[in-house]
Amino acid sequence: MLHQPGVTERLARHVVATRWDDIPPQVRHQAKRSLINFFAVTLAGCRSRPIEVALLSLAGFSGGRQAAVIGRTERLDALSAAFLNAACANVDDFCDTHVATVIHPTAPVAAALLASSGLRPVGGRDLLLALVLGNEVQARIGLAISPSHYNRGWHITSTCGVFGAAAGCGKLAALGEREMVCALGIAATQSAGLCECLGTPAKSVSVGNAARNGLWSAMLAEKGFDGPVEPLAGVQGFYHALCEKPDLSRITEGWGDHWEIMATSYKPYPCSFVIHPVLDCVLDWRRDHRSAEVVRVVVRGHPLLSVRADRPNVSTGREAQVSVQHAVAASLVFGKAGLDQFTDACVADPKVVMLRDRVEVLRDESFATIAAAVEITTADGKVYPLARSAARGSDVNPLSDHDLEDKLRMLAAGWNPRYDAAPLIDAIWTLDEAADVSRLASLVTPH
Amino acid sequence: MLHQPGVTERLARHVVATRWDDIPPQVRHQAKRSLINFFAVTLAGCRSRPIEVALLSLAGFSGGRQAAVIGRTERLDALSAAFLNAACANVDDFCDTHVATVIHPTAPVAAALLASSGLRPVGGRDLLLALVLGNEVQARIGLAISPSHYNRGWHITSTCGVFGAAAGCGKLAALGEREMVCALGIAATQSAGLCECLGTPAKSVSVGNAARNGLWSAMLAEKGFDGPVEPLAGVQGFYHALCEKPDLSRITEGWGDHWEIMATSYKPYPCSFVIHPVLDCVLDWRRDHRSAEVVRVVVRGHPLLSVRADRPNVSTGREAQVSVQHAVAASLVFGKAGLDQFTDACVADPKVVMLRDRVEVLRDESFATIAAAVEITTADGKVYPLARSAARGSDVNPLSDHDLEDKLRMLAAGWNPRYDAAPLIDAIWTLDEAADVSRLASLVTPH
Repeated sequence: MLHQPGVTERLARHVVATRWDDIPPQVRHQAKRSLINFFAVTLAGCRSRPIEVALLSLAGFSGGRQAAVIGRTERLDALSAAFLNAACANVDDFCDTHVATVIHPTAPVAAALLASSGLRPVGGRDLLLALVLGNEVQARIGLAISPSHYNRGWHITSTCGVFGAAAGCGKLAALGEREMVCALGIAATQSAGLCECLGTPAKSVSVGNAARNGLWSAMLAEKGFDGPVEPLAGVQGFYHALCEKPDLSRITEGWGDHWEIMATSYKPYPCSFVIHPVLDCVLDWRRDHRSAEVVRVVVRGHPLLSVRADRPNVSTGREAQVSVQHAVAASLVFGKAGLDQFTDACVADPKVVMLRDRVEVLRDESFATIAAAVEITTADGKVYPLARSAARGSDVNPLSDHDLEDKLRMLAAGWNPRYDAAPLIDAIWTLDEAADVSRLASLVTPH
Repeated sequence: MLHQPGVTERLARHVVATRWDDIPPQVRHQAKRSLINFFAVTLAGCRSRPIEVALLSLAGFSGGRQAAVIGRTERLDALSAAFLNAACANVDDFCDTHVATVIHPTAPVAAALLASSGLRPVGGRDLLLALVLGNEVQARIGLAISPSHYNRGWHITSTCGVFGAAAGCGKLAALGEREMVCALGIAATQSAGLCECLGTPAKSVSVGNAARNGLWSAMLAEKGFDGPVEPLAGVQGFYHALCEKPDLSRITEGWGDHWEIMATSYKPYPCSFVIHPVLDCVLDWRRDHRSAEVVRVVVRGHPLLSVRADRPNVSTGREAQVSVQHAVAASLVFGKAGLDQFTDACVADPKVVMLRDRVEVLRDESFATIAAAVEITTADGKVYPLARSAARGSDVNPLSDHDLEDKLRMLAAGWNPRYDAAPLIDAIWTLDEAADVSRLASLVTPH
């Protein structure tokens, strides 16, 4: 009987077969852009309170100093480093987004790959190829279950990220097809993460686990640890358990014709990406109306904006990252929406508190997630209708390379005001020529 | 406004408030029976191939020698030890079962608690109380979602075990209510595991993770790591994502009136518990018909018997543990169903292979999971109708204390033929008088 390969096997085959030469120049460049953004947000997050607590805890169990914790002096075992670097990258809600799935793709994959490079030398091209492939695998697995999976409360970055990390690390380890299927199977049975945790430090646990467990899945598969032949589409497998009606064609159809990493958005603001078109409107308007007294703001957007971020009462900076009301209020008061606008102090600022109460959120099915309309009413009775069809940073209105470098410089300056980001930026843009990627982490190790 | 505690908070409150004196003597005794069984199956599993591979891998990342890997000389960090001990206990499909949910309850909870005792001294009563409570939490969370959750392909031992481990370890750490809610929230976002992995080594990964991640959830919560206020019933929480219509009343109703650990079954055979009533029939019959040639066996049972174990073609001992066909064939050939009947060698035995083909499985909604009917036809044309309403070892037909001791002695002898199990058995029966439970693991450390 002819063997009919299942969808997991076909996916594994593609990952195993794809070579550096198969990746077009613009895709390679986008992978570097993702790394610029990854280092920027990781430096921003690496000293946050949840990371400190998780690091302190993991350090008590960790053996070896195999891999760097980016932006810190500590080195830990590779699994713990993968966890922490992914958690750092995502902790501030400032990392990149694959809008069609709402996956934040680079945090789990890049963190796992960089940790993996602490176990064996990894060349620049290998890392970029693995990043593109890991990204592709998690995006395609996510596309097959979107939007129902996310709507059920699954934190899709975590649930799909573990596959991306497993596939990417499996590629670095040069797994064969059967081993790659095993890696994906071991990843599948570790796929977890709930959106209920958004706005709390617990969010970081599933993102960190995605990187750690993805890396470990690849390592176990490499050592011959066996798993099911059809973890994705099997009757008791991932899709059956975690979604209603998967569109399995999304998993492998047109592999290599396009690359999902090209659909990555990079955030100009450290908050949920659904709030971004709202902030574009508000910040643009604020530039010309610094002294206006705002009495009412009505925001209209995609249903996800309400589901995720209609949160009038917030008490912490972390919650504020998923609050339209807070984001609008803080940007009206300060004329910007940077990390300082999403702190506990800003949440408690009396001016911001007052303005939050004046913001209302309406859901409108006709909007895309990257679009929004805002109506601002001022004390003098004037009404300003504002709209944005594609948020700054979204895939159709992308940040330029220069914008991304600025983001890295800005966040690195918050980490260390005397830091010169130029060598790191240069190392990333020339990464395909590097023999060993471990230099990247060393460029952001404090002395 | 009066604070209306959510279901997670009410559950946490019960766990925090329950004291040793609240636990009736027969429940305390059942907890010890669970430990007898736990040590028996852990010794049986601790040298299996998946455990060797996982141990070798984890040892490369582990720091400190905080906790014992039961039955082995290695000591690892507490998180890795929790993983391995839970995986060992469950690897052979020989651990206990809470039939109403199909949770194998003791593996994740006891493994986490014993690992936790490597971090701070734990008294015998504290361990038993935490075991009862961890068991209660995971069973109740599971009851609220049964049977739809398991039917979707979730490996409920893993998905609910992480809560049991978190609650039990949280109890050992004397967490307050708010911290206990956080521990359950951090557990919720790590809840994972797919039945598609049954019959492969990947199964052990989610069971091990349940113990590891449950322990870690409690530790993070103790350090002030925050989580959502309603991880179970929140609109993007555990129940919304992982099941259809939870019966939330099961979570806390009648707390303390009865204890779910009393509904634990202990297995006489190392295979899926749904196969057990079938084996009772076959082994009883075989005793009086040693030389009969069997030409056909028709097995009739609860639908789960078909879903889980109608598996005519098997190629490994691990797969054989979830194959009715194999279990029937091997017990007909050898007149017993011990670990030796679920090895790769037994799977390849020509007599067993031939008999497997003669076994047919029918589903019948009228059967309970602990019941089965078997019709054996012999070469001389005779037909033997056999039936069992409650499998040996099930909660209504339990193994005696003596049976459990025998199981421990038998499996310990497989681990070390010269081992005297008496001190361990005695230490478990008198555990409520022990000042420090770490002696238990030391009694099964090879010298």
